[in-house]
Amino acid sequence: MNVSGHHYRTIWVNQADHRCINVIDQRSLPHRFLLEELRSVHDVEVAIRDMHVRGAGLIGAAAGYGMYLATLELQDESAYFSQLEKSAATLLDTRPTAKNLAWAVHVQLDALRSASTKEELVALAFKTANEIADLDAASCYQIGEHGAALIVQISQRKRGDVVNILTHCNAGWLAFVDFGTALAPIYAAHEKGIDVHVWVDETRPRNQGASLTAWELGQQGVPHTIISDNVGGHLMQHGMVDMVIVGSDRTTATGDVANKVGTYLKALAAFDNNIPCYVALPSSTIDWELSNGLTEIPIEERSGDEVKYVEGMSDGEIKRILITPENSPAMNYAFDVTPARLITALITERGMCAASREGLLTLYPEHQR
Amino acid sequence: MNVSGHHYRTIWVNQADHRCINVIDQRSLPHRFLLEELRSVHDVEVAIRDMHVRGAGLIGAAAGYGMYLATLELQDESAYFSQLEKSAATLLDTRPTAKNLAWAVHVQLDALRSASTKEELVALAFKTANEIADLDAASCYQIGEHGAALIVQISQRKRGDVVNILTHCNAGWLAFVDFGTALAPIYAAHEKGIDVHVWVDETRPRNQGASLTAWELGQQGVPHTIISDNVGGHLMQHGMVDMVIVGSDRTTATGDVANKVGTYLKALAAFDNNIPCYVALPSSTIDWELSNGLTEIPIEERSGDEVKYVEGMSDGEIKRILITPENSPAMNYAFDVTPARLITALITERGMCAASREGLLTLYPEHQR
Repeated sequence: MNVSGHHYRTIWVNQADHRCINVIDQRSLPHRFLLEELRSVHDVEVAIRDMHVRGAGLIGAAAGYGMYLATLELQDESAYFSQLEKSAATLLDTRPTAKNLAWAVHVQLDALRSASTKEELVALAFKTANEIADLDAASCYQIGEHGAALIVQISQRKRGDVVNILTHCNAGWLAFVDFGTALAPIYAAHEKGIDVHVWVDETRPRNQGASLTAWELGQQGVPHTIISDNVGGHLMQHGMVDMVIVGSDRTTATGDVANKVGTYLKALAAFDNNIPCYVALPSSTIDWELSNGLTEIPIEERSGDEVKYVEGMSDGEIKRILITPENSPAMNYAFDVTPARLITALITERGMCAASREGLLTLYPEHQR
Repeated sequence: MNVSGHHYRTIWVNQADHRCINVIDQRSLPHRFLLEELRSVHDVEVAIRDMHVRGAGLIGAAAGYGMYLATLELQDESAYFSQLEKSAATLLDTRPTAKNLAWAVHVQLDALRSASTKEELVALAFKTANEIADLDAASCYQIGEHGAALIVQISQRKRGDVVNILTHCNAGWLAFVDFGTALAPIYAAHEKGIDVHVWVDETRPRNQGASLTAWELGQQGVPHTIISDNVGGHLMQHGMVDMVIVGSDRTTATGDVANKVGTYLKALAAFDNNIPCYVALPSSTIDWELSNGLTEIPIEERSGDEVKYVEGMSDGEIKRILITPENSPAMNYAFDVTPARLITALITERGMCAASREGLLTLYPEHQR
């Protein structure tokens, strides 16, 4: 999508130097647009763990490129594959909840099994990493097309009046390689001339909504308003939300969705007010092994300092301020699970389906046991 | 309650100079404990509107003292009462949602009708303002005693294991004259030696939980953990919350509750997880004229800058930082309404009752029509 009118992806291979992966350092957004060069598995590991890059699809794509950089670092000819498995384990360890990360690492490992020389491994890992990134962008594009149809329907029902869409966290192009998931239908509808307006949940504690989603939408010219995470219920009670669209970091085979913490609360409010709540996801987030999101999906716990300190702009500099008593402890669960019963439908790259095993199998019959 | 081991109320008359009302300037908490002197109706108006003082009970008590300061300013002997009504209107205009404010102003106007000379008006307003403040403190103390019984029950059921209580915003002593409402039962239970732990919702955008509730609990030695507003649902899904207690800024005769925005979302989550959700309130927050909170309670909309900018401590100074794109708009509804159907019971100064007209009338039969 666009930054100051120029098209960017969130991650790409430096064309002059294939040993270098470029990413947008998302920690500086919305205040500064900075690019970062990743030159080793370690660089990728740090970028994912410390959230220079984040979002379901992007950390998958980054892990794919991380495995490519790992092949460049191979040294002991007799143990190439165990070295790659070690790198894979390091990458898998960075973020426990998201499924794409594990999916991408395993796609790489499976592909690399067929190679033997370092040259073959490097070439195959490069090709596979690019394929993972391209697949992510293509899936998101398809999600946008399928989801836009829903927005068009609501717009028609409202006789062209503005369609108000609430989203939580950032499931835009910054969270993927391009287009995004929750925001892809919005971009597609906006492109088609539909009058849309997005309620952007701030998304504490890391403020991905207030910083990333608002910035993305602004760059693309999509009307939006930032609200604190507490406000969505009130808006829904007063008819100010037509639909909720969020993303997913991991989806069970039964349609439960792990997404940024707070998603469950918005799904409850949508359900209570009879407002449709959609989850947009590429099938790479589906964990076909799982049937109970609440008990089976590991929920990442991050540092309480992300709650106690907030970063932002003051006098042209990025400052970090303490907003709590110094000695009060804070706890920071990064995701929660929205049970399938609260989800109106899933929007995938193959189309829409019910949030249930039956629904998912109609679109992905190859996962029938 | 205590600040560094010394007992304070949130508002009091300066004993050396009865023309001066002292308050804690809550904008500097938790970083600095500053007192402020209010010497005119205008000072009180600014203190309420700009939230130097805030909270259902405290703004009522402040308005009561504001009316006292108004009597000191009386000039045109022929129109004392219309001057007082003008001051009353100014005070009523500061915050539209809370009921105590209007209640306190009308208690003063009703009392002052019986006086005629300036000396009588001043003396009567002084006495009435003190009575309003004392009644607030006494009501909160009673709420604490009634509510503590619930916590003791849960503690017994858990065989003395820690009782985990989630609260939203600040309905502690800082929001009233003393003790608080939602926190009063917690203080009372803690005093009785019950093992309690409080999940403190940060409460964006003004962070009253992270700054005021956490500070209060810390000063009183009550174990607590700050969480972002998004986290409560996850904790409830995983059995980490035994009860929810919140306050109320206005309560309808049918038991609907307007409280800090986001309360509705927590009530939904408690209901979905079969966790009791209590609202603690002095009867001065009850609006006996209203029967539908969603349609009848005016919801204050504050500046979007409260969402876009955050204040906190950096290098020993209080700094204000921008956390959003400069050009993205933000909207800031300060309250939402939790329908009575989601509330397990109301805890009042006269005891507990169902959140319904019948429930409230059992405790307040004088309001039977």
